[in-house]
Amino acid sequence: MKISTRTIAVSTRGDCDSVDITPQVADEMGKSGMKNGIAVLFVPGSTAGLTTIEYEPGLLADLPEAFERVAPTDKSYHHDQRWGDGNGHAHIRAALIGPSLTVPFSDGRLLLGTWQQIVLLDFDNRPRQRKIAMQLLGE
Amino acid sequence: MKISTRTIAVSTRGDCDSVDITPQVADEMGKSGMKNGIAVLFVPGSTAGLTTIEYEPGLLADLPEAFERVAPTDKSYHHDQRWGDGNGHAHIRAALIGPSLTVPFSDGRLLLGTWQQIVLLDFDNRPRQRKIAMQLLGE
Amino acid sequence: MKISTRTIAVSTRGDCDSVDITPQVADEMGKSGMKNGIAVLFVPGSTAGLTTIEYEPGLLADLPEAFERVAPTDKSYHHDQRWGDGNGHAHIRAALIGPSLTVPFSDGRLLLGTWQQIVLLDFDNRPRQRKIAMQLLGE
Repeated sequence: MKISTRTIAVSTRGDCDSVDITPQVADEMGKSGMKNGIAVLFVPGSTAGLTTIEYEPGLLADLPEAFERVAPTDKSYHHDQRWGDGNGHAHIRAALIGPSLTVPFSDGRLLLGTWQQIVLLDFDNRPRQRKIAMQLLGE
Repeated sequence: MKISTRTIAVSTRGDCDSVDITPQVADEMGKSGMKNGIAVLFVPGSTAGLTTIEYEPGLLADLPEAFERVAPTDKSYHHDQRWGDGNGHAHIRAALIGPSLTVPFSDGRLLLGTWQQIVLLDFDNRPRQRKIAMQLLGE
Repeated sequence: MKISTRTIAVSTRGDCDSVDITPQVADEMGKSGMKNGIAVLFVPGSTAGLTTIEYEPGLLADLPEAFERVAPTDKSYHHDQRWGDGNGHAHIRAALIGPSLTVPFSDGRLLLGTWQQIVLLDFDNRPRQRKIAMQLLGE
């Protein structure tokens, strides 16, 4: 078994932007030459998270509304009172979603469902450049 | 170190059904012959998730009520307006819980707490047959 | 590639206490001698979870308020009616956050953001001694 360390660069618009990174993940897996193993994805930073969704316009509109219920944008956050950067809601949302996602692959194929894409959710209140760490373990 | 790819088949009733898959996970780990490593579990599909709970009837009643607060069944979702399948809430809940869970094991034993079980939460609005991907890495 | 199994002991105050375990995770990684791989962290028990946050006093005050919206302390839980231990909210919160977190490392450094710390969130309604399982895979 071997390890391959890779990076996936993503530009986001912030404000609960969902970016489908499945093609990049599949591409890096292919370039590694591994056929069987796991892809560990991790987003450095505390205002973004990784999960999977069916990447279609309806859900891309539903997700920000759901996060408004859990951590509203217009609430007063202690974080913002201290630091004045206005992204307290983004920190809470990112902590709930989590920064890591592990996707298994077999026979050179990510074991995703047909209507399931890997997404970076960027909760920050401004556009960001993200570099997702990817650690492939396999053979 | 080696890799073993396995599948755990689960029938669910949908509607926030929780299925305890701990026995199947332990069984597949045992059959692999590995004593020390990690079990990476991943549910293909975008309306189910994996986590751990104390699997007892009280919590099995509490969980659906909690998810009603986070993503209510009776809300109008953009996803449903587009596709008419009525499971928008299931997609949101699955994105929040996440499709992957990694459980370490040592000396041939999953490192779970005494009152902690691995569960598949199926949020879809109908019974489903799920095939959970399981990638064991260890020795 | 090799495996190293370790344990991180943490004392918590309970009641949504956040404990920064980044120094212990980095220390155990260093002692393993591995330079490149993944750190799989898993908290046994069903009333605590692992995630990352910017560990600063504002967010440490915001997090308990966010969890009150998702799973209020003063709600009546079926779990508590059955078992009388008063920590139904803690079980729900832990199921949402999840017990596992996987952090990649490269060149002997955890691939965290500058303002991102690994935290144990203890939702139980009393102080607890936790032993986090840590499985390092790497070389």
